[in-house]
Amino acid sequence: MAGTVFFSVSMSLDGFVAPESSEDLMGPLWMELQQWVFPTRFFRENLGLGEGGEEGRDDAILRETFARTGASVMGKRMFDAGERMWPEEAPFHTPVFVVTHEERDPWERPGGTVFHFVNDGIGSALEQARAAAGDRDVRIAGGGATILEHVNAGLVDEFSVAVSPVLFGAGVRLFEGVDAARVALEVVRSEPTPRATHLTYAVRER
Amino acid sequence: MAGTVFFSVSMSLDGFVAPESSEDLMGPLWMELQQWVFPTRFFRENLGLGEGGEEGRDDAILRETFARTGASVMGKRMFDAGERMWPEEAPFHTPVFVVTHEERDPWERPGGTVFHFVNDGIGSALEQARAAAGDRDVRIAGGGATILEHVNAGLVDEFSVAVSPVLFGAGVRLFEGVDAARVALEVVRSEPTPRATHLTYAVRER
Repeated sequence: MAGTVFFSVSMSLDGFVAPESSEDLMGPLWMELQQWVFPTRFFRENLGLGEGGEEGRDDAILRETFARTGASVMGKRMFDAGERMWPEEAPFHTPVFVVTHEERDPWERPGGTVFHFVNDGIGSALEQARAAAGDRDVRIAGGGATILEHVNAGLVDEFSVAVSPVLFGAGVRLFEGVDAARVALEVVRSEPTPRATHLTYAVRER
Repeated sequence: MAGTVFFSVSMSLDGFVAPESSEDLMGPLWMELQQWVFPTRFFRENLGLGEGGEEGRDDAILRETFARTGASVMGKRMFDAGERMWPEEAPFHTPVFVVTHEERDPWERPGGTVFHFVNDGIGSALEQARAAAGDRDVRIAGGGATILEHVNAGLVDEFSVAVSPVLFGAGVRLFEGVDAARVALEVVRSEPTPRATHLTYAVRER
């Protein structure tokens, strides 16, 4: 029985999930986008930053998202940015299937993250991720283009967008190029916290 | 004592407030965007469509927005589309200041809407709207470009966006060209209803 295929991202009110250049990751707009994530206890724990951090709904939402994920699919752009930024103990702790043209042996990190490099496209990566996830769910980790490719191919069952109180004005738009004639949304839930509004939708075909 | 300057619009999850062409107004995506509005009792009352319609929070939110508005500012594009679509008793019931190059005498409609045509820009229109609104608020009615012009000029105090469960893929983006280096947001409130999530922000200068 295959698990749910989902994604979960932070989005600015104007629809951006990342700055134009990955050099602006960690810039002030990015910090405002992720302001519901960084103070949490889960974020600190998961990156090995030590004790402390806030509990509450934002923390619980991150924890639930992590717990349901049995494997992830990731694009090359996100992997390249992450490879420079993640600590040695990468924060996934599951298999991660990276869609890339680069041929590379699996890269095992301490703490259970294993990056597998898939050269034959998103369908194949997703199939491998489903098998690896067992009865847990598959997360399309990102970036924006990889997520959208899965949405337009009808491969995403459900997604969550944390809308943060920030306007980017430029960058990577989550839904740029979405096939609106095909993709319909159904609200699963909408939950405001003090730092973001967590919107969850099921994806339906029109 | 000047009232608050605000706007209140329905936005698709991917950031659009109108379709590309005003001929697509009343198309299926537009109906999904406005799905929290059309079934309400207020919507029917205000357009003179007769009795009936749903009560509840969506209805109350529309009613509150109408009640606080003493005057509106409107762009030429919205006025032109509306002039073709509004019933004789236009749904504003207050003075409306239309920013346009067209010189035209005030146009009084039954039911209290009076359109004034302002030829010397948004600052002048807003000043006249403030004076007309008395101690009530001024609404920047739309369209998207006119709203953004006010936001970027630092003239908007507060706004509400009803995020509807629909993806447009194309059209008029609310925040296209926003001056993100200048505009910061503070969450005032976030309220989900079954048909939309109502996000209200105060605008701050960075």
